[in-house]
This record gives sequence, C-alpha cells and structure tokens, in this order.
Amino acid sequence: MTSQPALDWNEKTAENIQRVRATHPLVHNITNFVVMNFTANILLAAGAAPVMAHAENEVEDMVALAQALVLNIGTLDDAWVNAMLRAGKKATALGRPIILDPVGAGATALRTRAALRILAETRVTLVRGNASEILALGGVAAATRGVDAGDPVDAAAEPARRLAREWGVTLAITGAVDCVTDGRRTVRVANGHPRMGGVTGTGCGISAIAGAFVAVDADPVSAAATALAYYGLAGERAAAHSAGPGTFVPAFLDALHGLCPEDAARGARIREG
Amino acid sequence: MTSQPALDWNEKTAENIQRVRATHPLVHNITNFVVMNFTANILLAAGAAPVMAHAENEVEDMVALAQALVLNIGTLDDAWVNAMLRAGKKATALGRPIILDPVGAGATALRTRAALRILAETRVTLVRGNASEILALGGVAAATRGVDAGDPVDAAAEPARRLAREWGVTLAITGAVDCVTDGRRTVRVANGHPRMGGVTGTGCGISAIAGAFVAVDADPVSAAATALAYYGLAGERAAAHSAGPGTFVPAFLDALHGLCPEDAARGARIREG
Amino acid sequence: MTSQPALDWNEKTAENIQRVRATHPLVHNITNFVVMNFTANILLAAGAAPVMAHAENEVEDMVALAQALVLNIGTLDDAWVNAMLRAGKKATALGRPIILDPVGAGATALRTRAALRILAETRVTLVRGNASEILALGGVAAATRGVDAGDPVDAAAEPARRLAREWGVTLAITGAVDCVTDGRRTVRVANGHPRMGGVTGTGCGISAIAGAFVAVDADPVSAAATALAYYGLAGERAAAHSAGPGTFVPAFLDALHGLCPEDAARGARIREG
Repeated sequence: MTSQPALDWNEKTAENIQRVRATHPLVHNITNFVVMNFTANILLAAGAAPVMAHAENEVEDMVALAQALVLNIGTLDDAWVNAMLRAGKKATALGRPIILDPVGAGATALRTRAALRILAETRVTLVRGNASEILALGGVAAATRGVDAGDPVDAAAEPARRLAREWGVTLAITGAVDCVTDGRRTVRVANGHPRMGGVTGTGCGISAIAGAFVAVDADPVSAAATALAYYGLAGERAAAHSAGPGTFVPAFLDALHGLCPEDAARGARIREG
Repeated sequence: MTSQPALDWNEKTAENIQRVRATHPLVHNITNFVVMNFTANILLAAGAAPVMAHAENEVEDMVALAQALVLNIGTLDDAWVNAMLRAGKKATALGRPIILDPVGAGATALRTRAALRILAETRVTLVRGNASEILALGGVAAATRGVDAGDPVDAAAEPARRLAREWGVTLAITGAVDCVTDGRRTVRVANGHPRMGGVTGTGCGISAIAGAFVAVDADPVSAAATALAYYGLAGERAAAHSAGPGTFVPAFLDALHGLCPEDAARGARIREG
Repeated sequence: MTSQPALDWNEKTAENIQRVRATHPLVHNITNFVVMNFTANILLAAGAAPVMAHAENEVEDMVALAQALVLNIGTLDDAWVNAMLRAGKKATALGRPIILDPVGAGATALRTRAALRILAETRVTLVRGNASEILALGGVAAATRGVDAGDPVDAAAEPARRLAREWGVTLAITGAVDCVTDGRRTVRVANGHPRMGGVTGTGCGISAIAGAFVAVDADPVSAAATALAYYGLAGERAAAHSAGPGTFVPAFLDALHGLCPEDAARGARIREG
C-alpha cells in the first residue's frame, strides 16, 4: 500500500477556490430558517449556485439537478426530517455528496435522532459541527448548550477519528483551530477569527461552502480543509475591515467574493497530523 | 380604436416612486423563506408597507387589508400552494392585483404545476420571472438550472407576447435588458447592474416592488416598467457605492430609500418596442 | 406597605447590559420567518445566546435549557400556535419568564385568537407590542394595519394599565416614547430613532432583547425599561452612523455590541409616571 503523496495545501486551497468560481456547482440546501438568506449569499459570494427546497414531493427532483446536498438540522420538524431523508436517499442513489450539519445535536432528542437517522439511512460524505455536537452524536458525554456550545476541538480529535471510521464519513470539527479527519488522515486548519462566532449562521455557512468544495474535489478531507481555510481567511479579512458583528457580515461576503487565490495560497494555515 | 397617448416614461417613473412613498401601499407577500427579510426591507425602503402571512386560515383576512398580493413559489410545499390559491382567489374576488413570481418554474414539477394552477385559478395581473422560468411555464423548451438560470431575454420576447395574450397577463422578463409585455405593447428597461445577480433575492425583490407599483398605477405595463427602472437605478447606484456583494445589500436599500424622483426621471432607460 | 425605593434607572440600565454580556442568557425564540436571522444577530450582539426551535416535539426540551422564552406571532399557522402553547406551558411549569410579541394582533382573527390563548393558557411575564396591537388584544377599538400600525402610545397608557392588571402581566408599548406598565408603576422611555421603523424586525428585536433582560432582572418593569433604553440608544447611535435603512442595520448591530455601559448610563432617558 503506497502512501498518498503529500498535498501542497496552499496550492490546493487556491485551486479549489478557482474551481468553485469557474464551475458554479449547484448546492441544494435543506437548512434552517435562521440562516437561509445568509447561506445563499455565502454560496453566491463564493461563486457557487445555491438552491433551497424542502418539500417532500420536490426534493428528489431538486437534488437530481445539484452537485451537492447540504442537510442542516436547525429549526427542524418531522416534515423536514422526512424531506432530508428522502433527499439524502436520492443523493445516495445518484452518488452525490451529502454534507450533514448537526446543529444543536445533543440539545434535544429530536435533533440527535434526526442526525443519527441521516447518518444511518443515507451515505453522508462530510459531517461539519462543533465538538459538542459531534461528540453528542457519537454518544460521547458532552454538554450542548443551544447551538453554540463548545468542548475544545482538541479533546474531540481522538473520539472524532474513531467516529469517522465507525460512520464511514469525514468529520470537520470547527473551533479556534478546526480539525478534519476521515479516521486515518487528520488535518488542522488555523484560519478564522473570533468575530465569526458573534454572527448567527457562520457555522451553517461553512457547511454549505464545504458542500461547494466537495462538489469540485473528490477528496472530502482536502475539500473540507481547503474550504475551512478559505472561509477562515475571509473571516480574518472581514474582521480587519469591520467595527463589530454588524459590519462584519457585509465585509465577510465581500471577502468571500474578492479573496484572490494567491492571497488564499499565502494565507491558508493547514497542517497535517 | 384610438391609439394610447405616448407615455413620458421618465416622468411616469418619478411619479410612481412618489405615489408609493406617499400612499404606503400594503403589499401582502406569500413568499419564500430565503428572501422574506430582504423583501420586507426592500418594500419598506421604497416606502411601501410589507406584510407576510401564509396560514390558510389567515390569508383571506390579510389580503383583504392589502393593496396588492405577491405570490412567490420559492421554497414551496403543498400547504403553501393551498394558501397561495386561497389568497389569490380572495384577491381575485376583491379585484386586488396579483403578482406571480414563478421562482424555479421548470426546475421541478411541483413548482411548474403550482405556478400554472395560480395562473389558471386566480386572476394574475403580472408575472415576473427570468426567461427560462417564463418559457418553462409556457411549455417552450428551455433549461432551468436552479433559480438563477437564464435564456437571453431577447429570445423570449416573441413567445412572451404570445403567452401574455394567452394568459391574459402582463409579463416582466428580467435580464440584462428587461422586457415587459401585455401581448400588445412591449417595453424594454435597460437599468440595473450585474452585481444584483450576485445577491440572493434581488429577483424576488423586484416582484414585490412591482406589487407596490401595481398598487398605485392601474396600467400593469407602466407599473412594471417604472418599477424595473427604479429598482435598476437603485442597483446601479449601490454598485457604485459598494465593494462586493456584501456591501451591495445595505447600499441598495439606502438607494431605494434615498433615490430622488428627479434622478429617477433622468436615469430611467425605458423604451417602447 | 413600604414604598419601593426609587431606582437609579441609568445605573440599572448599565447594570443590566453588563449582566447580559456576563451571563449570556439563552433565549428560546418561537418567532416569525421574516426576522429570525435579525433577531438572532440582535441577541448575539447584545451578548445573549439565541436559539430558535418550533417543532411541537422539541420545544419542551429546548425551553428547559433556556432562561427566557419569546413568543412572536408573526407568520403564524396552527402548528406554530400549538408549539407556542406547548412551550409556554412548559416555561410556566418551570417558572421561566415568557415574553409575548403579538405582531399584527387585531389584523386577523388567527393572530388575535393566538395571542389571547397564549395569555390565557400560559403565564406571560411581558407583552411587547405597539399601541394598536395591545389595544386590539384588550378589545379596545383600534385599527391595525398590517404590522406597523400605531395609535399614539399616550392614548394607550390608561387602558394599558387596566389590561396589565387584568392579565397579570407587564406591558411594554413601543412608539416615539415607550410606555412600560405593570398596572401600578408606569415608566416612559424616550430613547430611539425614527429610522428604526424603516427596517423590518426592529420591533421583534426589542421583544427578544427584553427576553434577555428579563432573564437577568427579576423585575419585569425594570428589565423592559432598561432594555428599551439600551435598544433605543443603539438605534440613535446607528442612525448617526448610517445613510439610510440599509446601512442602519449593520451599524445597529455594531452599536448593540459596542455600546459601553457608561454611555448607556449617561444616555438612557427613562422616567417614572
């Protein structure tokens, strides 16, 4: 078994940014009401094409047109769970990548159950969440407080590797330093800015951007890590150009749109291990 | 049959802007989750009064209070289709103008069917969409890709005239140059800026603004054309005052609010034929 | 019966701002689609932790984690009414404060009935609305036009005192000068700026902020009045730093985040009687 050649992560980041901008992957989102507008604008700013559709009798048609499916369980109810499962099964049948964002898993039984059903009944490519959400899904003791809880990512890295193997997915755990693992390879991404946590939907937004990157990069670890670096770089730039959480939002969308691949290649802070 | 006197389009644009600001027409929107906030802010910035209400047992009460009803089929499901039909029938009975935005018609069967039912079962005044959506509704071959597809407007002008007559509506097809037709008269509007396409909900927003203009101008061709000129002018101004799609949004709302009728009269690029 | 010692309202305003920032109360919102994103960002900017959850089989779990429950009846339907009642009954059982925002009460029978049921079947701490909404709930003749209607607050003060006693709640009626009363004490708050009315969701936002303040201040009159002063001060500052309703929004969130308690203590315009 030959070892995989080392990636030049910074070149890969620049390349994936350009691929999304060149190919405009259609990302089908079944996501929560709070972030729908921001998520759509984040995807558009990155060069992707967003579509939101949640009706049970529509999601199969829509996912067939899309290059990736993003399932986000914030503001869930039973009808939305059913729609997510139906869309996810169709995506699985078509071989389309599925990204799961288990918002608030562990906080309520409805959310934990829904996320576990999606993991069990569809072929998820990537799960993106914070440490407490991922650990709650894995049955590892952790307190989730609403949707913005956080065990340190570091403490979650080892259980995450086990869960990634058990579920057959790539996990992206976001925090001050993000951790991406498929159970064998582990990559850390140190881009981002604390102000991102002061705005609702930045977590949901990276899940959607990861969907766009997974659509153009067949390696989910590389797709997720480069998406996180790009997204975090835009957050760093926006923080430098804003005075608070309000002005951060337009500056962030401008940065996602305007960040040139060369700057991304210089600024990405991705390391393996 | 006497010919209609030629409109001074620029004066008409200024006049309609002022009428909306003076009378604050109440626009009842049954619209998609992605754009509800932006649509409400767009209407407020223009001087109109927005209300969103979608419950089947509420829409008749609400539409009775409103001066226009805007039906937008993004993020649809069966309950929303029923609410739209119920609101539309009540608006028809009351003689209130109805604006239909067939978001994503042609992309999924649910959306195409819903839009056709609204056209068949209510008296729609104006349909506002992009070329591929309008052509898909008319059964004219076209590919719709998500919600931001686009056949050139020009190619759609001739079938649009036929469809406008067939459906008994005015059509506003938006693109680089917009086309408004009731099947007899055709008007082109050349205002706008490409950056508007980089933000979600700008298309839905013009449908809502057209609702406000139809509420103050009994001629749907004139109402739609002047709404498009006003909206496009605000987009031009906002593009000149923003660095990307993020800063465009607040600048656009400021421009809708601040654009003086004289500037609108000077800047409107409306021509007949 | 000893009289309550006079509050130093400006010190109390500063204190409550700091308490929210220090303790990050979790505010569970069942609110309308139009304002969910803005409400979440308003709460985050103030230092509170927002969560939105509306499924009937989830709201009891969620409200048990929260320090306050905010029920907002915009974009209502029957399922949401049921969820609000279920969450409200659980909050009542747990002794958690409930804030009711009767958006559009009086405009439609569905909204009026829903608000009255919430008042009757749960123990509401604070009702925040405009004069016409509050009067409509109380069966006092008033015209509600959509969601932005307004009888003068002054005319509503006397019936409001009666309704506060009858319902056993504190009422916060917002307008140019806000009026807070529990039926015995009445407090006026003169902060704010007309531009706040030009943006959707500023009314819903103050209801959410009042939820955060009620979570840290056991006196609902004091909590509501200081929340109104803080919120209005942020609006004043944002109006001074913005050119229209679009740029107002980011400036407002920045101001909520950045307003220092000393400035709040200096600027609060609260008076009793």
